[in-house]
Amino acid sequence: MEEINHLLNYENLKIVQNRKGFKYSLDSVLLAHFASIQHRQKRILDIGTGNAPIPLLLSTRTNAKIIGIEIQEESYILAKKTIRLNKLEEKIQIIYGDVNEWYKQTESDTFDLIVCNPPFFKMNKSSITNDDKQKQIARHEMTLNLDNIFKISKKLLKNNGRIALVHRPERFIEIIDIMRSNNIEPKKIRFVYPYKKRDANMLLIEGVKNGNAGLKVLDPLYIYDDNMNYTHEVQSFLK
Amino acid sequence: MEEINHLLNYENLKIVQNRKGFKYSLDSVLLAHFASIQHRQKRILDIGTGNAPIPLLLSTRTNAKIIGIEIQEESYILAKKTIRLNKLEEKIQIIYGDVNEWYKQTESDTFDLIVCNPPFFKMNKSSITNDDKQKQIARHEMTLNLDNIFKISKKLLKNNGRIALVHRPERFIEIIDIMRSNNIEPKKIRFVYPYKKRDANMLLIEGVKNGNAGLKVLDPLYIYDDNMNYTHEVQSFLK
Repeated sequence: MEEINHLLNYENLKIVQNRKGFKYSLDSVLLAHFASIQHRQKRILDIGTGNAPIPLLLSTRTNAKIIGIEIQEESYILAKKTIRLNKLEEKIQIIYGDVNEWYKQTESDTFDLIVCNPPFFKMNKSSITNDDKQKQIARHEMTLNLDNIFKISKKLLKNNGRIALVHRPERFIEIIDIMRSNNIEPKKIRFVYPYKKRDANMLLIEGVKNGNAGLKVLDPLYIYDDNMNYTHEVQSFLK
Repeated sequence: MEEINHLLNYENLKIVQNRKGFKYSLDSVLLAHFASIQHRQKRILDIGTGNAPIPLLLSTRTNAKIIGIEIQEESYILAKKTIRLNKLEEKIQIIYGDVNEWYKQTESDTFDLIVCNPPFFKMNKSSITNDDKQKQIARHEMTLNLDNIFKISKKLLKNNGRIALVHRPERFIEIIDIMRSNNIEPKKIRFVYPYKKRDANMLLIEGVKNGNAGLKVLDPLYIYDDNMNYTHEVQSFLK
């Protein structure tokens, strides 16, 4: 069963979702607002685009051409419908395929920005759950892991191109290691806290291909205020 | 000219400072509150103890024996006076010497916790300023750098012993690299922000010798509130 939702409170953006499938999440919204958008950017890639929430949100911030790639047919179909519904076919292209194969045939040094809201969890025995496969692929590193993401980014990014990622703080050190072993220098980090006095439960990180050392740790991003409402900042992301 | 000050607002702790020399700073206070104090800890080392603010503060939190080592004679003398003034000779020992030499003669695997508020700035031509040498040594990596600190910690810490450090976020990636190349696993980090909506300007980091991976990013620490007064949390550190 499909349903059409407004993309959060965006009046003019609609997203097609499968009622029982993996739905887009706040992570994607935070990432779409965190990634550095620059006037000179011409081409943006979203790895594992799902039903395309990130391209949709980025389209409000940039005139660059955005390509989303998705391995799951169900999500790909929803993404295509979503793009058509929003009349964004000129700006956003959705590719159905495995990025691990696709990038090999793709010209190197051709993207200004790569964004990715990847599966957060490592594969292990307990990863094989009763969840349906669609959710498993979106959550566990079955088809896409950190090594792949940064190897692909190393090839596809232009010199000084950027990759922005949302992930879990537990994997922060590993992310930095893999970024740097692919010549991608971490340049800005923002930790996301559910609310005050709690440990971070998410991180936003951006690196620059062949960039110089020099990291900025941005101000913390809180999701909920003391009354458990979205903070003003998060509300501003939801328009 | 020496002066005797109360250690911030601690009623019962006094610190001897040189009116013109390098004085202890809020960094040391934050570090003394950040470091993990555990009941079973028997021996603590403070590398570059200056006039001993960190041992003084730690002495209120632990019954462990605390050793501070200081390379500068002026600071060493002030530290000794400070310890005597507070009648803490039983608990705190101050060593005058270069930790880079001292650690070679020191038995390995003998400390539960090492703390260090090191010089923050790399040595380069512009480091040679008109400042007096005492301040230069305290601020620039003339006699102590990150490589030394973690090499020393690797030797002197017991298995699963901890090292806690205060430093600058710009050097965060480098700190993590050097920690891990010395088998010290980063376990908790707290970023310090001057006030809201600003980038972090300090970081507190603690690692465990031969520890497992798994990092916690603690809640942000703000120094000033909206009215530019110390936040409640910082005030609580100052009693």
